[in-house]
Amino acid sequence: MSLTHTQGHTGHVDFVGAGPGDPELLTLKALSAFETADVVLHDRLISDDILALAGQRAELVDVGKAGFGPSWKQDDINELLVEYTLRGKRVVRLKSGDPTVFGRLDEEIEAVEAAGMSWRIVPGITAASAAVASIGQSLTRRGRNSSVRFLTGHDMKGFADHDWAALARTGSVAAIYMGKKSARFVQGRLIMHGADRKTPVTLVENASRPDQRILSTTLDHLPSDLATAEMHGPALTFYGLAPRDAARALTEFNKELA
Amino acid sequence: MSLTHTQGHTGHVDFVGAGPGDPELLTLKALSAFETADVVLHDRLISDDILALAGQRAELVDVGKAGFGPSWKQDDINELLVEYTLRGKRVVRLKSGDPTVFGRLDEEIEAVEAAGMSWRIVPGITAASAAVASIGQSLTRRGRNSSVRFLTGHDMKGFADHDWAALARTGSVAAIYMGKKSARFVQGRLIMHGADRKTPVTLVENASRPDQRILSTTLDHLPSDLATAEMHGPALTFYGLAPRDAARALTEFNKELA
Repeated sequence: MSLTHTQGHTGHVDFVGAGPGDPELLTLKALSAFETADVVLHDRLISDDILALAGQRAELVDVGKAGFGPSWKQDDINELLVEYTLRGKRVVRLKSGDPTVFGRLDEEIEAVEAAGMSWRIVPGITAASAAVASIGQSLTRRGRNSSVRFLTGHDMKGFADHDWAALARTGSVAAIYMGKKSARFVQGRLIMHGADRKTPVTLVENASRPDQRILSTTLDHLPSDLATAEMHGPALTFYGLAPRDAARALTEFNKELA
Repeated sequence: MSLTHTQGHTGHVDFVGAGPGDPELLTLKALSAFETADVVLHDRLISDDILALAGQRAELVDVGKAGFGPSWKQDDINELLVEYTLRGKRVVRLKSGDPTVFGRLDEEIEAVEAAGMSWRIVPGITAASAAVASIGQSLTRRGRNSSVRFLTGHDMKGFADHDWAALARTGSVAAIYMGKKSARFVQGRLIMHGADRKTPVTLVENASRPDQRILSTTLDHLPSDLATAEMHGPALTFYGLAPRDAARALTEFNKELA
């Protein structure tokens, strides 16, 4: 059962997780939502294959907040969601990965609720799950790490000392979203707080997509290897995890770096 | 792209995430895996609806590790996986939620690798994603919590003081798997480390299934409310999260508790 939060109007928003990019990682529920939608408001990072599925019956509206074209502000997206529902439209708000993980979902739900419209969340595969599957590892493992933290590169800039100390401890595993820009900063702080320079760090760019690339490095070499790699797609950074079989998982791309 | 780790034999294992129970939360990739499987080794907690889909062409084998029937040991499961692949079978190893989250996946992969067989991980919707969607919240939220921790009730028994102190800080959010039995212990430690007794705690039993129940309580009342609730299904405990709209999200079940 998934609760549909109904408030007696005809407009409705499904907040749908598109997963990491491979259309095969869509859920059946996401497909059903596409089928009944009048309009799909989507992020910039949704893959073309998924947009093709989402747009079979519905109008597609790109509300991407970054990139070269005109940039959308969060308030404008909220307003557009409300506008469509007030016109009685069935809206899919399509977000990369899982909408509940770093998706700024709450602000949109609050706008839709304030307008008295009904809504529902359809969970998706978050990037960390797809990325860790691609390196043949688990997010948690008995005897290694009994918990995993999801965080963003931005947020780490506001970390207190105890957060750094916790992450720096041997065996910590974290899935860092949007971590490329802060890589050098994060490296510096972790080493300052006693992290082993040889701690494995793995970046998975474009997880689950045909252009997926895996960069296997260490905390010590993270900034330099990342600079050489020139990753332009979205990347998930695993702190504390190496690909299962380093020899086999080293891609051609990694060999180029050597 | 998902890497298939091939080693030149015909047997193969797909480690497939079944999601939290609602068959609509299966991915298209999971369905494809079912279609090509000869045999599906599944956990005890997989829902009947999903087993019906998985067993349309393949033989179903219950390797559940708990409950009343004969109990399977991890070593026996590993052995069975290898046995099937050595006979050239295409195996789906079907795990609840996402196989990379508290799924003891690594031990099984190592057995399959040691036998020289190929394997692949098909990610699934983890219980935390489905459960948080059902209470209309996000796992992360700007200005509230910039990170989220996934952990298990068992593992919390091995927590050090700094782990408790971190979790006890205002604004922390954790998704606790298998947390029912340790609820009283966890409550005691958190309060000892300065957590606010009024911190919201929400349990979602049977997330995404028709018999889903939501228990909205506080750290202070957690053990007593949990005892009254008599939850027998798998439950996800959110520490630091309340259902979005307490008044509306309070189910009939919660009213009975009052």
